[in-house]
Amino acid sequence: MQRYFIQQTSVPQDYQLEPEVFKHAIRVLRLKVGDHFELTDQQQQVAEMELVEINASQARAKRLKTTRPQVELPIAVTIACGLSKNAKPEIIVQKATELGAARIVFFNSAYSIAQWQAGKVPKKLQRLQKIAQAAAEQSHRTQIPTIDFYPQLAAVPFADYNVKLVAYEEAAKQGEKQTLYQVAQKLQQLIELGSNNLLAVFGPEGGISAAEIDFLQQQGCQPAGLGPRILRAETAPWYLLSVLSFVLELG
Amino acid sequence: MQRYFIQQTSVPQDYQLEPEVFKHAIRVLRLKVGDHFELTDQQQQVAEMELVEINASQARAKRLKTTRPQVELPIAVTIACGLSKNAKPEIIVQKATELGAARIVFFNSAYSIAQWQAGKVPKKLQRLQKIAQAAAEQSHRTQIPTIDFYPQLAAVPFADYNVKLVAYEEAAKQGEKQTLYQVAQKLQQLIELGSNNLLAVFGPEGGISAAEIDFLQQQGCQPAGLGPRILRAETAPWYLLSVLSFVLELG
Repeated sequence: MQRYFIQQTSVPQDYQLEPEVFKHAIRVLRLKVGDHFELTDQQQQVAEMELVEINASQARAKRLKTTRPQVELPIAVTIACGLSKNAKPEIIVQKATELGAARIVFFNSAYSIAQWQAGKVPKKLQRLQKIAQAAAEQSHRTQIPTIDFYPQLAAVPFADYNVKLVAYEEAAKQGEKQTLYQVAQKLQQLIELGSNNLLAVFGPEGGISAAEIDFLQQQGCQPAGLGPRILRAETAPWYLLSVLSFVLELG
Repeated sequence: MQRYFIQQTSVPQDYQLEPEVFKHAIRVLRLKVGDHFELTDQQQQVAEMELVEINASQARAKRLKTTRPQVELPIAVTIACGLSKNAKPEIIVQKATELGAARIVFFNSAYSIAQWQAGKVPKKLQRLQKIAQAAAEQSHRTQIPTIDFYPQLAAVPFADYNVKLVAYEEAAKQGEKQTLYQVAQKLQQLIELGSNNLLAVFGPEGGISAAEIDFLQQQGCQPAGLGPRILRAETAPWYLLSVLSFVLELG
């Protein structure tokens, strides 16, 4: 069933479709009176709605029932990616949203080929935020990840995080295969002890420089291998999120 | 370092670049005498090579050393995907290769919007096989996954597999979260008992029909949830492969 996020904290019994919802549900999907859709409010509640009236520029729906599904990872995961080129930030955002990231940030990295000019950042973030919203609706999440950009790695707010990782190919090459496993095994326990967030840093296409690794380690990020194959810049965060879902949500 | 697959079972001490390798290494990358690259032979051996002579249409390299890196999943995983539209099969193949799949097959599924006409299948498979080879080279695998197509689900050779799963959204919705966890936990043991392959079936964009699920269960495929969020057709196999890597290769 089609689902939309709305800005309100709860859905009224008798709901008049806001312009964005009207446009998509009535104009694009051509829903009819009697058809159902869902609305997710700002309290992560999901209301099932039935269309009762449609006219040229407005439509009304009645609320049938409200639920609060548990579909968010039990720990808020921030994915910080060195800026990659072309449409890669878009596909990173789309898939990391499906896979449960709470926050997705990009930074200008030593080996980044792409660089975002300050003037263009707001428009780029706005576009990525829209992609995140669409992916959150499609994957039936109840939260939309926030998207942000830092002109340099040092601007990432490391102190806000209890558990910090950096995906490091060189570590994997040297046979590092303990870190992610240990962190994953300990996460349940860490969550109970009050850790409610995790930061994972990923390089751009060219990888992460030795100086950046040094800096990240000083900030408390543990270098972690993600298996013996070399993953592309966009694939590595999806691997991590899939593993966290498996460890924290299945079993 | 750039890596290429070659058809030979081993790399000679004095190697004349075959046309495909010559074209990419010399024409595209513009490697010079003294530059290094790697060749993977049909026995999963990787030879480090140094260019010693380049002329207009030929080049020679000498073999420096040969290794046999362990970069393949300890179980051969086949990903069987309902045919999805546009470029989705290409991105499924590229990422599933990076993530370690041994074999990637597509089938015409009840809810597939795309259908491949018999006459076009060989060309499409050839293209996907090329994508698999490029991704295997880039991710430094020592095997290229094989790509195949079945006109219908029933043609998939289920009897060849010991462990069989089908990713099922409806199962996930009903809170199914044991199957993948249990299979993953047991895989090590199953491998020791001689199970050396696993088949995982995924629907196309529209999902998998109830009749297909019935048929798959008769073939021994266990319906498995992949967490509480709805994953797109292409994301679900990447989730599974990431989890298998974590369980079988890390720790």
